[in-house]
Amino acid sequence: MQEALAMCNRPGLLSFGLGLPATEHFPADEFARACAETLRVNARALQYQKPLEELKSQIVSIMALRGVACGARNVFITSGAQQALHLLVALLCDHRRQIITEDLSYPGFHQIVGFYQPEVLTVSSDLKTGMNVDEVERHLNRGIRPAFIYTVPDGHNPLGASLSEEKRERLFQLTQQYGVPLIEEDPYGLLYYSEYPSRPIRSYTDEYVFYVGSFSKILAPSIRVGWIIAPEPAMPLLSILKESYDIDTATYSQHVVSCMLGSGFLTEHLRRLRSEYSRRREAMLSSLSDYFPADTEWYRPQCGVYVWARLRHGLDTSSLLKTAISEHNVAFIPGAVFSISRTSAEKGSMRLNFSYPSVANIKEGMQRLGACVSSAST
Amino acid sequence: MQEALAMCNRPGLLSFGLGLPATEHFPADEFARACAETLRVNARALQYQKPLEELKSQIVSIMALRGVACGARNVFITSGAQQALHLLVALLCDHRRQIITEDLSYPGFHQIVGFYQPEVLTVSSDLKTGMNVDEVERHLNRGIRPAFIYTVPDGHNPLGASLSEEKRERLFQLTQQYGVPLIEEDPYGLLYYSEYPSRPIRSYTDEYVFYVGSFSKILAPSIRVGWIIAPEPAMPLLSILKESYDIDTATYSQHVVSCMLGSGFLTEHLRRLRSEYSRRREAMLSSLSDYFPADTEWYRPQCGVYVWARLRHGLDTSSLLKTAISEHNVAFIPGAVFSISRTSAEKGSMRLNFSYPSVANIKEGMQRLGACVSSAST
Repeated sequence: MQEALAMCNRPGLLSFGLGLPATEHFPADEFARACAETLRVNARALQYQKPLEELKSQIVSIMALRGVACGARNVFITSGAQQALHLLVALLCDHRRQIITEDLSYPGFHQIVGFYQPEVLTVSSDLKTGMNVDEVERHLNRGIRPAFIYTVPDGHNPLGASLSEEKRERLFQLTQQYGVPLIEEDPYGLLYYSEYPSRPIRSYTDEYVFYVGSFSKILAPSIRVGWIIAPEPAMPLLSILKESYDIDTATYSQHVVSCMLGSGFLTEHLRRLRSEYSRRREAMLSSLSDYFPADTEWYRPQCGVYVWARLRHGLDTSSLLKTAISEHNVAFIPGAVFSISRTSAEKGSMRLNFSYPSVANIKEGMQRLGACVSSAST
Repeated sequence: MQEALAMCNRPGLLSFGLGLPATEHFPADEFARACAETLRVNARALQYQKPLEELKSQIVSIMALRGVACGARNVFITSGAQQALHLLVALLCDHRRQIITEDLSYPGFHQIVGFYQPEVLTVSSDLKTGMNVDEVERHLNRGIRPAFIYTVPDGHNPLGASLSEEKRERLFQLTQQYGVPLIEEDPYGLLYYSEYPSRPIRSYTDEYVFYVGSFSKILAPSIRVGWIIAPEPAMPLLSILKESYDIDTATYSQHVVSCMLGSGFLTEHLRRLRSEYSRRREAMLSSLSDYFPADTEWYRPQCGVYVWARLRHGLDTSSLLKTAISEHNVAFIPGAVFSISRTSAEKGSMRLNFSYPSVANIKEGMQRLGACVSSAST
């Protein structure tokens, strides 16, 4: 990711690569106010402290927006969703034990898994309905008892898919029936574009489900605050692990986030983000129609910040990326990057982010990228 | 530590337990100014970004204050010293391989080691001159090639000792002769009370030495920014590890720290801290003379925030702590806690922190603790 960030500094480059939030929509004034207020009222905000109970309660309210009932006793504050994932893998995963994940999945998760080296059992995914739960069931039926199952049910990274209600219900049943932990990562769940957003699987049960949330996409990534909603018995072990990782999530950042949330601005801020990102999504989808070859396949995401586009059979997006950058000054992430098994059939796909670029840049960049794809297709 | 922080909330309790900085000496105004300035000049401070080059250069200047010559290419920014240690153990330590550490060492290090489960070879320490380097040499002579050697040469945690010049030289020679990495943790090095502070072992060489620094004790712990000075070839691997841990150290915090350092206030701030902590150290040492039994042993620390006190043979400070809290409303950390092998002969010792309590509270608390020790001794 650091390399990708460096690449984005190329003059004039339009990037659909990383899943960055829109810089111009960060609540910078709210941040500034919260920073000043925090230091004005509380010099202890600079000291070592216990995780903030008030922030935990506020996270409980955010979870209610997602249809999840939980208590502050279930909230574990982390230095962003990435650390939450790392802690959960460390908590649940013994060396060489099996895990089940979609083959197409978040590369930050691959990095963690690469360190613990479990046996990775993959399942496929559908662009519209998400994870293939039949394949999960087949693994479990043949006696596999994985350390955990991992998925991003809403605004899937990289596919943009949302797990269907029927599959959520079945995945929930499977975790309970076989007593298998589920890591449900949900950084995009509050960025939905349909009238009736899905509820996370954590809303079905508080057993076996480890939910991961984050302020990175809804406030700002640079503050690094996220959370786990975990079954209560897991809390003491998570605390010990977390203390060994970095003692605690920056107390100062916890205060600032809590102070921001206390002003009640989040509801309106989320409404604005959804409205803006929805416009950007439309710009990207219409650009795919307008500028890409007619045989390109994609699905309209209901949530999140990504569109997955499949190009004509035979095109390799990894080599296409070089031409896209050097000749058209536009970037994306090739589909193969997201295959944890490195054997994906998605070599002709690309992940396109629509939250970072403006509508104008989306149109301009997609026109460039469309030209690049078209000339490679002929 | 979270438990210890909770205990400190007991009304009226005077605690010499944790190594907290003085809350009333945090540079809160500088922080507030830097927060406002950061958001005023740079909305991208809220976005994902690469580690800040400017902060790396500023850390190079801080290292020069410690007598270390290095370049920005050697600086790796972390979420505090604890994460720096965790990353280095993950980088250097294979499962079940040996490591060499002082038996009396930082419990946060024990927690990390507990997770990786190397074979731990311990050496003893001297209150005045630090780590027993003869014992290190004996291990190496009999063919042991550990993953690393770990020590805190200045203001040792828990002993408050400073490694003698002669031992630094020999430890440096051993790491070079045997090609063994050294993790040199130095959170207290800038809090020295002698005219001629020692230089870290990193000042002798850039080979095999992994130096860990931190802003926790010199600015504030709640901002969670620390650093590693590492040999250049280790940097790409550290980057990959770090990205899997938490993507990056909060960019916003990096900007704030960099903005604070840019004002040039650190030199004067360090002078003030050293002067204040030096007064507190004197208060603690004279209180040990005034209120503790005459056969108590201690050594005057030249650096850091701890004094190690050895009580009369036969006293067990772990059981004494209960009486100290419940009957005298005063706390410390029993020596046995710091023994990584859990076999230490230091059951009659205690670690006393003098940076957090005011001079008045040191006198009052040490009088209470002295009374508690005296009644247990009779």
